[in-house]
Amino acid sequence: MLDKLQTQLEKQFGIKFNDSKLLVEAFTQGNYLNEHPNFKGHDYQRLEFLGDAVMQLQTAQYLYKNYPSWDEGQLTELRIAMVQTRSFASLAKQLSFNEYILLGHGEELNGARNRDSLLEDVWEAFIGALYLDQGAETVTNFLTQHMFNKIKTGFYDQFIDYKSKLQEFLQKNGAVQIKYQKLSQSELDEHNQQQFTVAVEVQGKVLSTGNGSSLKNAEKAAARAAYQQLTQK
Amino acid sequence: MLDKLQTQLEKQFGIKFNDSKLLVEAFTQGNYLNEHPNFKGHDYQRLEFLGDAVMQLQTAQYLYKNYPSWDEGQLTELRIAMVQTRSFASLAKQLSFNEYILLGHGEELNGARNRDSLLEDVWEAFIGALYLDQGAETVTNFLTQHMFNKIKTGFYDQFIDYKSKLQEFLQKNGAVQIKYQKLSQSELDEHNQQQFTVAVEVQGKVLSTGNGSSLKNAEKAAARAAYQQLTQK
Repeated sequence: MLDKLQTQLEKQFGIKFNDSKLLVEAFTQGNYLNEHPNFKGHDYQRLEFLGDAVMQLQTAQYLYKNYPSWDEGQLTELRIAMVQTRSFASLAKQLSFNEYILLGHGEELNGARNRDSLLEDVWEAFIGALYLDQGAETVTNFLTQHMFNKIKTGFYDQFIDYKSKLQEFLQKNGAVQIKYQKLSQSELDEHNQQQFTVAVEVQGKVLSTGNGSSLKNAEKAAARAAYQQLTQK
Repeated sequence: MLDKLQTQLEKQFGIKFNDSKLLVEAFTQGNYLNEHPNFKGHDYQRLEFLGDAVMQLQTAQYLYKNYPSWDEGQLTELRIAMVQTRSFASLAKQLSFNEYILLGHGEELNGARNRDSLLEDVWEAFIGALYLDQGAETVTNFLTQHMFNKIKTGFYDQFIDYKSKLQEFLQKNGAVQIKYQKLSQSELDEHNQQQFTVAVEVQGKVLSTGNGSSLKNAEKAAARAAYQQLTQK
């Protein structure tokens, strides 16, 4: 079952598990064990406990070393965006981790296989297993290739709630009126896609605009542009 | 200023910093910098950001390896008790970290030097500095000697809120009446100390008793005994 994953890990990242039982454990969900009493092994929960802390330190360390001029607030903001359910689920899916999970029947029927919370658990458990089997340096190399290199592309921006951040920033000294105003909406193209443009207005003055494939995304883009402009990051 | 600390670290733990600037940074509070514009250096906040994550992983890893039969819930419970403000402040004080902090004048007047929140920050910053300067293994050795060896003595039990845990456990299936009843209170001894004994009653039946130097501590001890009895740990 996990042969395909092992091949992929070796080919893409040069990773070869010494103890493949650890890899199996990382992908074993609790109810699968209940349903397969002859299956020897544990579920992923202890590895997830360990892997969660490995992810915190690996990410903190990367940011600490690569952003020497950032203060603690900036480091924390990016770390929170990176170390969270949706981010881990997304990283796990990119490696097709969802295909390999040994899942209980009920969970399968409930669609748990592609649920962010399960993918997050398995991601953390995998990192815990990798850390135990190969040590911290291999984890750092793996994360650098698959996770940290996405920082510069803006990948983790999607996990930052810029509308809340903008509101917080603007209302530090009391309530102000923030409005998102739709400026334009394109026709559907041949792929059924649309483009929206939104302006964010503060006390009636346009602060910034943003584009997106939905009204919500355009609002987020506008909020992000305004926030970054105001905080000059 | 930090000479005494360096001597202590070397004598007690065999630790000698290569870059003593890191050690100074870990003990420098922000307002001290504002008040000493000629002081070259940073405050402890970036090191605290890193050290926080180091503490999480070091503790998780120790528990994972030393309690192989514990499930994730048990591991998490003890980790939370160990990795928290009061615990870190207590560990910092035992090494007289409070004496070494380069503190702003206003904070000094406000009594910040012995405040748990500052001691926690400095503890984490120190661990971050130690990790950068000496690597993970030295941190593990230091924490094993000064922090992890206190697990068996029950040191971290004081940071577990057993009254809440007992209540949560007993009220899983609906409200029950939990009462703490004072059974006895000794006279003050020559050191001005007293001993209290308290019984915890559930639906009118005594579940356990506990002793303590205050009514509050006796209640906590009774709750702890009852909780451990019920969960057979």
